[in-house]
Amino acid sequence: MDVILCGDFGPGERDDWLSALSSAWPAGRWLDVEGARRSAATVRAAVVFPPVGDALQGLPNLGLVQSLWAGVDRLLASGEVPADVPLARMVDPAMSRAMSETALWATLSLQRGFFAYARQQGRRLWRPLPQRRAETWRVTVLGLGEMGRAAAAALAHQGYRVSGWASRPRELPPGVGAAFGDAGLGSLLPKTDVLINLLPLTTATRGLLDARLFAALPPGASVVNLARGAHLVDDDLLQALDGGHLGHAVLDVFAAEPLPPGHPFWTHPRVSVLPHVAALTDPHTAAAAVAANLQALADGRPLRHLVDRGRGY
Amino acid sequence: MDVILCGDFGPGERDDWLSALSSAWPAGRWLDVEGARRSAATVRAAVVFPPVGDALQGLPNLGLVQSLWAGVDRLLASGEVPADVPLARMVDPAMSRAMSETALWATLSLQRGFFAYARQQGRRLWRPLPQRRAETWRVTVLGLGEMGRAAAAALAHQGYRVSGWASRPRELPPGVGAAFGDAGLGSLLPKTDVLINLLPLTTATRGLLDARLFAALPPGASVVNLARGAHLVDDDLLQALDGGHLGHAVLDVFAAEPLPPGHPFWTHPRVSVLPHVAALTDPHTAAAAVAANLQALADGRPLRHLVDRGRGY
Repeated sequence: MDVILCGDFGPGERDDWLSALSSAWPAGRWLDVEGARRSAATVRAAVVFPPVGDALQGLPNLGLVQSLWAGVDRLLASGEVPADVPLARMVDPAMSRAMSETALWATLSLQRGFFAYARQQGRRLWRPLPQRRAETWRVTVLGLGEMGRAAAAALAHQGYRVSGWASRPRELPPGVGAAFGDAGLGSLLPKTDVLINLLPLTTATRGLLDARLFAALPPGASVVNLARGAHLVDDDLLQALDGGHLGHAVLDVFAAEPLPPGHPFWTHPRVSVLPHVAALTDPHTAAAAVAANLQALADGRPLRHLVDRGRGY
Repeated sequence: MDVILCGDFGPGERDDWLSALSSAWPAGRWLDVEGARRSAATVRAAVVFPPVGDALQGLPNLGLVQSLWAGVDRLLASGEVPADVPLARMVDPAMSRAMSETALWATLSLQRGFFAYARQQGRRLWRPLPQRRAETWRVTVLGLGEMGRAAAAALAHQGYRVSGWASRPRELPPGVGAAFGDAGLGSLLPKTDVLINLLPLTTATRGLLDARLFAALPPGASVVNLARGAHLVDDDLLQALDGGHLGHAVLDVFAAEPLPPGHPFWTHPRVSVLPHVAALTDPHTAAAAVAANLQALADGRPLRHLVDRGRGY
């Protein structure tokens, strides 16, 4: 089967993917954008690392666009994927695992004061802070997709009091409480020490992390945004930090990436900036997920992890 | 039973302990140093937060000195505890738990590059680093006492390749490999990405973390010292970091504490300084352990967690 492999790869990155995909699915003939133009009629599938420009246009027999990213908001907004072609998100167990590691690291750092100790080190200040027990530390995970559930499960295993939230009821890992919908969110926020955002970006969730939400958190609470920059209203966060209401923010994603050099997040003492690395797709494990969907397409079986364009994820 | 409660408490700290101990063991009459002097003949036990000076001298019926600290090296070296009185270490489940949290935080930070990202933030540098999988990350835990075993178990659960080491064979948590004695240490060091020290301080372990040990670690390995400052040869660590052989060090304990303002660890970009907070004794859980030993003394039953003065722990 002819498959176009295209997108905005870093140096050497397309070769890594090509190698992993070829070995995971030897039945594929992997084409680049120019190769796909020459064989437009035979291209049945696209594996993409967005953005992809117009590479997916003029391929009359395209039956699947498989994203190598979990988030598809930009791909949908850009119109790069023809409206009648099924679009699949990446669901990679290694990526969920990496995300739960990042959520656990951020939560441990906040619970035990390790960000505060790093600031103290900068001032050569030796000052022990109160040692808080995990059992008293309330973590709310927004979003109960693959990654939200993985993070919630890892945090619950570590002994935190974990609640999940989603707009509509979802299955929950053991030991994780939950609330759903707007009323559910309103009930959880005042009982949150760490708020971890792992929601998909949709019209309903854009700008959710704003002044109103921060005001509903208890004083000293912290915010961890691992989803999309557009979930967060930057100025509202800065005000909530500088006004002393919020304790700390860990941010992996930003409205513009790379984060512009003049952005106040870079130098804010109570903001930890990560360069969009909370969970990278791992070619070795992701290639297996891609191969499974390509084989399903070849066999005419149902495709997995398809995006609902009405919901936006 | 008359018990002397003494030592170098911070402001309000003795009251916190007194309150926790009184409620955990109502049978005690708790005396301070002056009270114990007045009733020297009736004092049967001491609960101490070292150093204690000469407070334990001249108490003819002292049958137990219970330390509120896990490490007893300073108490033994100081001669503050009469040689014929049994000395018990603190073994507090909350403290083991706190130690395993600190070990897990340090290991996650090293595996996922979070210390490096904090340095990059200081330079406004947006640069993703390779994402390493926990299964490929080799953690060696020196010391398999209560805290070493707790840390090793938490790390193994998180998916790391964990080996423990002790001078002589010890029981191991599930999923943890081990090696023992000098030869065992020699075999583990070259296969170590993160070395976590949780050994007791004895004549055999003093200065163990020196140039020779660092040279046996693979290039880029990191060192986490959560035990005692005297385990580490400071200048050897600085040379190994500056020469590029070691990647990072997380240090919670120091030869002199508080760490003197002029010490190069404070400002080294690849040293994380913690103010001896990796695991604080928690009065609420520790008081139960103290009460159990005091009741055993009252009943004439065997005392727990007694220090072997020959071994030094």
